[in-house]
Amino acid sequence: MAKSAASDLITPVVLSGGSGTRLWPMSRTLFPKQLLPLASADSLLVDTARRLQAPQFGPPILVCNQEHRFIVAEQLREAGFERRAIVLEPIGRNTAPAAAIGALLVAQTTPEGLVLMAASDAVIADTAAFQRAVATGAEAARKGALVTFGITPTRPETGYGYIRFDARGKKRGNGADCVPVAEFVEKPDQSTAEAYLKRGGYVWNSGMFLFRADRYLAELERFRPAIVAACRRAVAEAETDLDFLRLGQAAFAGCPAESIDYAVMEKTADAMVVPVSMGWNDIGSWGALWDIGDKDAAGNVVIGDVLLEDVRNSYVRTEDGKLVAAIGLDDIVLVITDDAVLAARRDRAQDVKRVVERLKLANRPEADVHTTVYRPWGSYQSVDAGARFQVKRLVVNPGAKLSAQMHHHRAEHWVVVHGTAKVLRGEDTVLLSENQSIYIPIGTVHRLENPGKVPLHLIEVQSGSYLGEDDIVRFQDDYGRG
Amino acid sequence: MAKSAASDLITPVVLSGGSGTRLWPMSRTLFPKQLLPLASADSLLVDTARRLQAPQFGPPILVCNQEHRFIVAEQLREAGFERRAIVLEPIGRNTAPAAAIGALLVAQTTPEGLVLMAASDAVIADTAAFQRAVATGAEAARKGALVTFGITPTRPETGYGYIRFDARGKKRGNGADCVPVAEFVEKPDQSTAEAYLKRGGYVWNSGMFLFRADRYLAELERFRPAIVAACRRAVAEAETDLDFLRLGQAAFAGCPAESIDYAVMEKTADAMVVPVSMGWNDIGSWGALWDIGDKDAAGNVVIGDVLLEDVRNSYVRTEDGKLVAAIGLDDIVLVITDDAVLAARRDRAQDVKRVVERLKLANRPEADVHTTVYRPWGSYQSVDAGARFQVKRLVVNPGAKLSAQMHHHRAEHWVVVHGTAKVLRGEDTVLLSENQSIYIPIGTVHRLENPGKVPLHLIEVQSGSYLGEDDIVRFQDDYGRG
Repeated sequence: MAKSAASDLITPVVLSGGSGTRLWPMSRTLFPKQLLPLASADSLLVDTARRLQAPQFGPPILVCNQEHRFIVAEQLREAGFERRAIVLEPIGRNTAPAAAIGALLVAQTTPEGLVLMAASDAVIADTAAFQRAVATGAEAARKGALVTFGITPTRPETGYGYIRFDARGKKRGNGADCVPVAEFVEKPDQSTAEAYLKRGGYVWNSGMFLFRADRYLAELERFRPAIVAACRRAVAEAETDLDFLRLGQAAFAGCPAESIDYAVMEKTADAMVVPVSMGWNDIGSWGALWDIGDKDAAGNVVIGDVLLEDVRNSYVRTEDGKLVAAIGLDDIVLVITDDAVLAARRDRAQDVKRVVERLKLANRPEADVHTTVYRPWGSYQSVDAGARFQVKRLVVNPGAKLSAQMHHHRAEHWVVVHGTAKVLRGEDTVLLSENQSIYIPIGTVHRLENPGKVPLHLIEVQSGSYLGEDDIVRFQDDYGRG
Repeated sequence: MAKSAASDLITPVVLSGGSGTRLWPMSRTLFPKQLLPLASADSLLVDTARRLQAPQFGPPILVCNQEHRFIVAEQLREAGFERRAIVLEPIGRNTAPAAAIGALLVAQTTPEGLVLMAASDAVIADTAAFQRAVATGAEAARKGALVTFGITPTRPETGYGYIRFDARGKKRGNGADCVPVAEFVEKPDQSTAEAYLKRGGYVWNSGMFLFRADRYLAELERFRPAIVAACRRAVAEAETDLDFLRLGQAAFAGCPAESIDYAVMEKTADAMVVPVSMGWNDIGSWGALWDIGDKDAAGNVVIGDVLLEDVRNSYVRTEDGKLVAAIGLDDIVLVITDDAVLAARRDRAQDVKRVVERLKLANRPEADVHTTVYRPWGSYQSVDAGARFQVKRLVVNPGAKLSAQMHHHRAEHWVVVHGTAKVLRGEDTVLLSENQSIYIPIGTVHRLENPGKVPLHLIEVQSGSYLGEDDIVRFQDDYGRG
């Protein structure tokens, strides 16, 4: 395929939201599933971005929760993918406003430019079928249609909404046809789902959409003018913050929360659908990961250091170098992370959301964070803790710098185990290389920096009467934190 | 009960053997089940020793694998229990030789002294019934009988040998009678076990025995003179090593390995049995721990930080502060330790031995040790490791001292986080208190000591090209190690 002219390129708008509940304990509120390497060695977000590297696409716009911004940016940077913008939502407002933001940004340069709305947390096994379906949809979208992509159903699924399409149209389901939408239908019950499957002409609503920026904005203006108005203000008041576009907070918070389906697609006369089979899976539960995983002869999907004795049709995953042995079990899910273990009957795995709710009610950190915590400058992990002390491993990215800070209640020992550290301590600046250490007394202003070209790893031993993260007085910060 | 004259006291001989397979991952070869707090806050060994604190008993003789000696000694010391001796077996030779060693030691001072052979890894819920049964047995034993204790069966168990006793004798099973043994019978099949239970007059062979030292030695001399001869030599050649009595290695290694049952009890004309119900359980599997555990309304035994959703009749235990969530499961065992996870159907939990066999074949450390490793001076635990570095937490007991040592390939940083350390480094001796640190360069002779009255905790950061435990040159050691 010849490279298209820039104005013909489709701008993907990738939505990176997510509450981190359905794949707990691997996903957490501050580390939802799209940021995890669930279907390959890369995260679902990076897999999604890779799928969008075809010649028909320009650099994507990412729309994400501001809490996830450093991880999103770092994953894209590491993978080497360009992006047009990373838009920070101060609060989630569902998909119609996010699409409006994407359309407004594209329309700034190319009002008739095509926008592909895509989730960052779905698996699409057949990339070629995906790209073919997008190309098919693009033809209709250029003529003004609002195109959705419908997944040819393979089972009577009751967990998705369906799209009925015009049966007079072609319906080969290979992504080569774009046909009018007849009706959006709600999640059916079992017998209705079976009837849809038998009758044909129904596809699953994938939540992927393709349209011209101006057409979407025109239809949204017609059906939901308040959303367009709020989004225009949020973009007008947006601030550039490092690499990020931070939407105007008051404007966006005042925007009605609605899905694209409900706000536009179910109402417009120009809805079309590309029926397609492309190995799509929205990874709604651990059971879905078992569905799509590579299975051994006994039907098990196994990831990590696992020993099985007479186990069948199970999903066993261990993330922390921890050994797992399972004996005499069928149809279970067993997931081990650095701080938590999930064991569930496979067909009950979606109830993990109840566990997460209970954790949130109890204010347990396991709902929100991993023991590895990501920061703009790198990450840290708590590796040991006891009375009046704790041990962390810090990783500081090349060139990165922590804030200048001071603690009232703890002293810190730092031992460099890899790379080079530049440490400001009081009035002095010291350069430490591997195997050197420094002591930061209570109340001393200090600042840690990695002046080198490789990641700096250091072991921090904290001691003191209070070791909470909130014992910090920041004096200067490169990352806009108070 | 009035305190008996010293020569009337029963000397318990507590056998602390065990291969550490049946309760993996909590038990390990170097940390078998009797050393674990499985039925109370104390280890089974300490629970056993506590049961033997009644006035009828003198201080116990412990017979243990030499690999376990420091843990056995430390657990008894912490619990504050006296012991007569800790005998180290260079190799396991089953129970007849261990009983001979105990009898020989008792006979040195009191040839007619009573010896109670007891396992260190059984639970006995009803201590009063146990002590009553022992008192009953002691009367017969003083007259020369070789007494065994038979557990009144509560189910048609096929996993134990049975003892048929003389039905003409009394058989109240409350530990108040001592009756002649009619026959020792092998583990029965299911229908035979059911017949035994129905017929009455059968009890489980508990492996507890009570006899006069001289009587046991006489009967053993009669039936198995080679065992007596080997054990006499092993005691004659024994060396006192710190607190321990280390049996003559060649002599004991040459001793035939046989059980008391087979060598003596099944052959002697003077076998008697005390039928007793005392809440005895030999904790042969995780299922047994579920059997004896306190259950919630859904029949679950839960230990540690556990969240259950619709789980029934399961045993869930987490030892490492790690959160466990289980959903929709019945009849499972789930055990989490610092480095391993076991998930099993409850009635298949005994197959964990197959897992341990596979681990041993693969030379995996998880078969033998915990991440916490016990040493004569205290313990250490690996808390983090990466390329060219690792972090350990060391706990040094009050007054204890590591060997003077030197490493060719690693430097060490020590940060004291609790207590006081006395450090020899090269020619200098330094005293470090909480929050102070020291650096030990590669090739420098050093020695660590806890001169204080509280345990010393320190964080050790090792760095270097090779970090194996075997990079150590020892110059002086208080614990007889090379």
